[in-house]
Amino acid sequence: MRKTLPSAEQDVAQLIDRLRSGDVRALARAVSLVENDVSSAAEVLSGCFPFSGRALRIGVTGAPGAGKSTLVDKLARHYRSAGMTVGVIAVDPTSPFTGGAILGDRIRMQENLSDPGLYVRSMATRGSLGGLARTTADVASVIEASGKDVILIETVGVGQDEIDIVRLSDVTIVVLVPGMGDDVQSLKAGIMEIADLFVVNKADREGADRVEKEVHAMQSLAGSHSGWVPLVVKTVATTGEGIDRLVAAIVKMKQWLESDGRMEARRKKYWSERITEMMRHALMRQAREHGLSDAELENHAEQVTSGREDPYKLVPELVARVMKA
Amino acid sequence: MRKTLPSAEQDVAQLIDRLRSGDVRALARAVSLVENDVSSAAEVLSGCFPFSGRALRIGVTGAPGAGKSTLVDKLARHYRSAGMTVGVIAVDPTSPFTGGAILGDRIRMQENLSDPGLYVRSMATRGSLGGLARTTADVASVIEASGKDVILIETVGVGQDEIDIVRLSDVTIVVLVPGMGDDVQSLKAGIMEIADLFVVNKADREGADRVEKEVHAMQSLAGSHSGWVPLVVKTVATTGEGIDRLVAAIVKMKQWLESDGRMEARRKKYWSERITEMMRHALMRQAREHGLSDAELENHAEQVTSGREDPYKLVPELVARVMKA
Repeated sequence: MRKTLPSAEQDVAQLIDRLRSGDVRALARAVSLVENDVSSAAEVLSGCFPFSGRALRIGVTGAPGAGKSTLVDKLARHYRSAGMTVGVIAVDPTSPFTGGAILGDRIRMQENLSDPGLYVRSMATRGSLGGLARTTADVASVIEASGKDVILIETVGVGQDEIDIVRLSDVTIVVLVPGMGDDVQSLKAGIMEIADLFVVNKADREGADRVEKEVHAMQSLAGSHSGWVPLVVKTVATTGEGIDRLVAAIVKMKQWLESDGRMEARRKKYWSERITEMMRHALMRQAREHGLSDAELENHAEQVTSGREDPYKLVPELVARVMKA
Repeated sequence: MRKTLPSAEQDVAQLIDRLRSGDVRALARAVSLVENDVSSAAEVLSGCFPFSGRALRIGVTGAPGAGKSTLVDKLARHYRSAGMTVGVIAVDPTSPFTGGAILGDRIRMQENLSDPGLYVRSMATRGSLGGLARTTADVASVIEASGKDVILIETVGVGQDEIDIVRLSDVTIVVLVPGMGDDVQSLKAGIMEIADLFVVNKADREGADRVEKEVHAMQSLAGSHSGWVPLVVKTVATTGEGIDRLVAAIVKMKQWLESDGRMEARRKKYWSERITEMMRHALMRQAREHGLSDAELENHAEQVTSGREDPYKLVPELVARVMKA
């Protein structure tokens, strides 16, 4: 990976011009800058901002083995064949895109070489502690700025970080499969709450109807907080069965969002949370630079553990030092 | 609840003297001050700090209906009959302690009146967005300062917040039950990773041996990152069967922790994360006071959503304003 990166404003402006004109290498470089959170990342994001916010963002989540990758692949093909450009972000560690870096890169390169209207990016789930949602949001903005009509974000629904990622989306699809025991009941409450659409994938297996019924039963218990009752679509992603119905359901959800200012309300809520998170990140970066380096933190933790330092006096002192810096 | 609270340093010092001498009302008031995060909370925590860190903290987590409350109740009784003093913090919304505030308060009052060596506190899981782990840690410190030998922290294992709470503990117990389908496999990875001990509760039911075998199979797959292989203990909490074996397993874990400085290492790691979290909280409070009130945040979110304001320029400006304040 290239490590010499543009830093002057002019270079960033050129990079954005190039990615906007369809240069895949420029797009990949801009994504890398943002993903690595280098000093010019803010400039890149600022440059991309006026050209983002126009794509439809579709999040796809579910348990490992639910067939999310295949589903995303089929959705991407569908949109491409309808003449729309597509970006895919795979943050699922069980996805073939991210499962192995080498395999993932190979697939990515092949896809990119064969079709300039499709851009696939796999994201590492390690080494970005707590910041994966932020990084994914930034990467999505850059890909959007390249003019893609649809952004598909694939993630495995297991942790808070993954839930945060999916909340970037305009439409969130939760993928279920039959034959996983009492799967619907054991689904995390957080995941159920964020679902706009349910897909019962591998619907050729026994028990698909039961899963569908369970979702409906849960819905009638839980009610709808937003006025939208999530649709349930049965698919067999491997054969492509049901993809047309899923696309129709997405259109229906999109139309619902676009009426009565719901899309704006949803995105406003998103930005409200995101600005807060960006502030938190920026303030902690300041803190780390002025008085809370890793070594100092280690030292303080040791002093506090042994009882020689009072954390409730220490923290206000550290904050005061950061504020004065 | 009393709303007139002491603010002068002398009052706080008196309050701490009283809670240290076994005054249950003083303890309850100090816990309320800390739970409500009022201005004197830091003073109370600072006053309690020299007297905390000596209790053994035991976290108990697991799915709703696993019998955590009964288990915690039996453990508390066991320690009391062995002459040890016990504090219980119930942050489980399915617990009878927190299930209904009135019922919870009644139980708490009864317990406290009948046995001064046992202090039970239920924590609300609503209204403390993202801060429940912090509040629980603070409440645990105050209860510790009252001289309790053991602190039992009960929480339902469903969200990141709950995982963070359990990470306060020296010993973490994950409660499983037979007959919940492929429960062990569907347990969140995060929960499996934090377990020091597994309890298979309701072990008189069919399938208890299978659950135990599944845990062992998972362990042999996952290996041990710390050198400690979590023990598996079968219990029937309602009859008290197996509680003695569980207590023995806790002793074994405690002895392991106390050798080779592992307890210190664990608590140092805890304080390192906690100081960071306390800084983040303090900095965001500063941010909210200087330039990011709820109304201002709302306004910025609207401007950003409509594209009139660039968040990547806005956030550095807001940060600069906070730093200058």
